[in-house]
Amino acid sequence: MSNPTAAMLVIGDEILSGRTRDANMHHLAGQLTEAGIDLKEVRIVSDDKTAIVGAVNTLRSQYGHVFTSGGIGPTHDDITADCVADAFGVHIDVRDDARALLAAHYASRGMEFNTARQRMARIPDGASLIDNPVSIAPGFALDNVYVMAGVPSVFKAMLASVLAGLTGGQPLISATLRVDRGEGEIAGPLGILATKWTEVTFGSYPFQIDGRYGANIVIRGQDDTKVQAALQELRGIFAQ
Amino acid sequence: MSNPTAAMLVIGDEILSGRTRDANMHHLAGQLTEAGIDLKEVRIVSDDKTAIVGAVNTLRSQYGHVFTSGGIGPTHDDITADCVADAFGVHIDVRDDARALLAAHYASRGMEFNTARQRMARIPDGASLIDNPVSIAPGFALDNVYVMAGVPSVFKAMLASVLAGLTGGQPLISATLRVDRGEGEIAGPLGILATKWTEVTFGSYPFQIDGRYGANIVIRGQDDTKVQAALQELRGIFAQ
Repeated sequence: MSNPTAAMLVIGDEILSGRTRDANMHHLAGQLTEAGIDLKEVRIVSDDKTAIVGAVNTLRSQYGHVFTSGGIGPTHDDITADCVADAFGVHIDVRDDARALLAAHYASRGMEFNTARQRMARIPDGASLIDNPVSIAPGFALDNVYVMAGVPSVFKAMLASVLAGLTGGQPLISATLRVDRGEGEIAGPLGILATKWTEVTFGSYPFQIDGRYGANIVIRGQDDTKVQAALQELRGIFAQ
Repeated sequence: MSNPTAAMLVIGDEILSGRTRDANMHHLAGQLTEAGIDLKEVRIVSDDKTAIVGAVNTLRSQYGHVFTSGGIGPTHDDITADCVADAFGVHIDVRDDARALLAAHYASRGMEFNTARQRMARIPDGASLIDNPVSIAPGFALDNVYVMAGVPSVFKAMLASVLAGLTGGQPLISATLRVDRGEGEIAGPLGILATKWTEVTFGSYPFQIDGRYGANIVIRGQDDTKVQAALQELRGIFAQ
């Protein structure tokens, strides 16, 4: 039996202009190879509706899975979700579950959940959400198309969720702790934890807000009990 | 007047499997932006005839220029030249001018110009050669399609030739000196030369053969007199 096939669609003018070097393609390629899925084609297109809709429809009809990267942020040129809805001919609007996730996230940070940010809750009818433990705004899966963020740390986290489902393994459960310290202070204790808790993985996704450094530590595993226990220990270490 | 448009086609299983991370796309993107040419789409396909022929024909009909990278080496899976000939419906065979370049190159190194290496002299009818000052085996241009090597140093050198022509500037002239020393020894004197000879550029393309290190130093410029004068000085410095 031959392997399942896949294609990737990278969306973004910043890649085609050379301003940003894409990192997601190489990551996806390695992950799919490990998962026994053959990546057969990659296309990179600009933030252009016709180009995106055309590529989505061509690729989803030719390959078993299509992974997209980019164009799901809050700005006017983030049109991937609408283009995917258009490609499938389905309705799209702000959806309650996605809005609730984002509303809670911004409330907890004391940030306004404005109209631009509500764009990130636009989900095509019939899609299921893809978990984003790093920055909350979800991706989505519609039939064989997986729509994910362009920011490499978010893409990686979303892909981990998706691949866990595709390869028939148990779905990954995640828990996130925000630590308001620089990664240099986090790395040591986190390394020790990672050695101890071998059945979960620890990811560190740094951020900088208002000049202060921090990181979201994401714990993932198939056993919720272990994820929660590791989270408890992590909390104990980084509590003030 | 809007800018001319371009697409890129990257050919190679090693990119899609994640074994190699492509570097040429990012380089091309930056160079085209500088040249005022809009890169609109990139496709990465495997070493598969149908995929390559289809992509070449789609892209060359949709965009002003098409740049390809990869699949022009000596092994059985290097099928780009044959696929491009097929896409254009023209004959392809080993061509005398390309064979002569390669024959002289291998003779000067005491290496056999065997059947596998002769594959690299297969050029479609009607194509013009693209200079390869790094490793000699030429690329070629056929109509609006520029077929170049996947090895990043060679891709860069070939692209420099092509872009000099496309942007209406004078063609670049090159001269190459092979220096059998490590780049660590070459860098210092080369830096001084580069400061002195401002109307030519110096590129250093390292290699390792039979455990010995060396580099091809490529001098490029629009004025042959200056290129030759810089080459003389380079020779003087690195004699022995």
